Amino acid sequence: MSTSSHSYPMSSGDDQHSYVHNSSYQKSGINGAEEKTRQCIFEKLDLQLNSPLSTFRIADYGCSVGPNTFHVVQGIIDTVKSKHSEDNNETSLVPLEFQVFFNDQPNNDFNTLFRTLPPSSEREYFSFGVPGSFYGRVLPRNSIHIGHTSYTTHWLSKVPENVCDKKSPAWNKNYIQCNNLIEEVTNAYKVQFTKDMGVFLEARAEELVPGGLMIVLGQCLPDGVPMYETWQGHVVDTIGDCLMDMAKSGITSGEKIGLFSFPVYFPQISELKGEIEQNGSFMIERMETIGHPMEDKALTNDFITSMFRALLTTIIEEHFGDGVVDELFDRFAKKLSEHPIDFEMWKTQVVYYGVLKRN
Amino acid sequence: MSTSSHSYPMSSGDDQHSYVHNSSYQKSGINGAEEKTRQCIFEKLDLQLNSPLSTFRIADYGCSVGPNTFHVVQGIIDTVKSKHSEDNNETSLVPLEFQVFFNDQPNNDFNTLFRTLPPSSEREYFSFGVPGSFYGRVLPRNSIHIGHTSYTTHWLSKVPENVCDKKSPAWNKNYIQCNNLIEEVTNAYKVQFTKDMGVFLEARAEELVPGGLMIVLGQCLPDGVPMYETWQGHVVDTIGDCLMDMAKSGITSGEKIGLFSFPVYFPQISELKGEIEQNGSFMIERMETIGHPMEDKALTNDFITSMFRALLTTIIEEHFGDGVVDELFDRFAKKLSEHPIDFEMWKTQVVYYGVLKRN
Repeated sequence: MSTSSHSYPMSSGDDQHSYVHNSSYQKSGINGAEEKTRQCIFEKLDLQLNSPLSTFRIADYGCSVGPNTFHVVQGIIDTVKSKHSEDNNETSLVPLEFQVFFNDQPNNDFNTLFRTLPPSSEREYFSFGVPGSFYGRVLPRNSIHIGHTSYTTHWLSKVPENVCDKKSPAWNKNYIQCNNLIEEVTNAYKVQFTKDMGVFLEARAEELVPGGLMIVLGQCLPDGVPMYETWQGHVVDTIGDCLMDMAKSGITSGEKIGLFSFPVYFPQISELKGEIEQNGSFMIERMETIGHPMEDKALTNDFITSMFRALLTTIIEEHFGDGVVDELFDRFAKKLSEHPIDFEMWKTQVVYYGVLKRN
Repeated sequence: MSTSSHSYPMSSGDDQHSYVHNSSYQKSGINGAEEKTRQCIFEKLDLQLNSPLSTFRIADYGCSVGPNTFHVVQGIIDTVKSKHSEDNNETSLVPLEFQVFFNDQPNNDFNTLFRTLPPSSEREYFSFGVPGSFYGRVLPRNSIHIGHTSYTTHWLSKVPENVCDKKSPAWNKNYIQCNNLIEEVTNAYKVQFTKDMGVFLEARAEELVPGGLMIVLGQCLPDGVPMYETWQGHVVDTIGDCLMDMAKSGITSGEKIGLFSFPVYFPQISELKGEIEQNGSFMIERMETIGHPMEDKALTNDFITSMFRALLTTIIEEHFGDGVVDELFDRFAKKLSEHPIDFEMWKTQVVYYGVLKRN
């Protein structure tokens, strides 16, 4: 039922390079928002949506593999339970049952997700894997009470076409990301982002019950800050430089690099807000940027290398073939140790946190 | 939420030994029941269960990997759709949406299941993977309109304890299955089957809506026929003989074989019916044995070897270690070619087909 879209899951399995073991940066961002979510659920969620409510449904869109998604879900359930018992002083006849929908692309590693679920004795919810792109419907209409998505919608459904077309003014040359250095490229990415975000919001609007809450969390750019001025942009540009070095050594080719660009777009915060307002299905109850609890300057070279490797391995392997990744990140690690990131000099992306209420 | 139980999934992946490529015997049994299912849905299902019904929910319990489960589900959906449009002459305001829950143990190969789903453009249902033992709750109460399970409940939740205990009168000696040759062994298996079937029916009774249908399909024994008189029983006893031969060659040990017995029990048809009646949550709308459309005598040695290999590899490897399976089935194939099965002489298991209606 869901529309197809290109998909590059986080590194699967649970070895040293896997997302399972390299998602603490994302976890840290999520943790920073926990108290806000708790507060918002207490203030904004109306549990008398379909009374008597016996099943409460939560969806995590783009859940990847654990453990972050399990942590988020448990936090939501704990809050809903305490709110429910506060709202129902008399003993409720029917205890609330929880259904949790873990959504991600069909090539996500659901086996690992399922095998690392909290043990059934400790888990007070029914678990479901939902394979399908969230750029399209993946759940029945009017079925979800709380939706959640974190660190997901910067992954576009595809690379904007012209960006890898040598003849187009929107060609991204040898850059491998939208670093905002070429205006036409930025525009092409922005068009795709607008389209994808529209589809995302439209689908969620159908799936959430009226009054349901959609929690969105991710990285974006502060208004007025281009990607190339941030240390994150600098890291990816440096990975691109390493690819170019490898082309010079004949391990890959400049031609191949010219045909490659990450389907990733980090909007500025006001752009993101604009898309949600434009869509009109949701009331913005809260939308703010929050400091990342992990001070950027505390990040070691090893940490940065591992984090970007877990994020980008799948897509790099698909384009450049197997066996490129080891060499690429060895070179990157070397470059990083020769020229460590001066966090005082570079700007940084920020974490946005939003709570949207379905009209 | 589901209770834990031992689990031995069908061979994963999609290579030559996988269940994906070695489940045509099961498919054939399922196909034989298709017209019966169609008829039963038309006659026995009351679609006005919660009117207006906008989401129709189907669960396949113990779905393994495709393609059989996709075929079954599509057949049910097609029938429900035509019944729905017959029952609603006026144009319905809200089109029916279908939700399909694919349930199996958490170590089932859900990745393969999801990657082999019919393409989203052809698939008119939302798909969900539901990890958990069906010997326990895996879905919210009162949520499923049609449940289905085929070739599943002969897998017990565990091996009856005494069966692998040398000091017990219920010790199964060097037999690796319940072949009904030792009465105490049969009784121990029967106790476990009764317990498991009770738990299965209790859980499904909670999950199905009142009036919902549960379709059950599998292999059983005709009344009065012991397992050792069937060719299927003979095949597994022969696999046991091959293990004993391997013990003599020092590849495994008699000790190890004495500690092993498949957690599989094929009830006689009246036993199965008895358990359902005993439970009392379901009305038996239909319960019959049907001939397997694949004439047993048409089965080649290669087919038999591949089929049993796909079914038993996981559990044999777990007990006897990696690398035993190739040798075991080479020996089995050799034995089979020297002594082909005389299908005229052996009795055969039968396929049972039942439709239960939730009271």
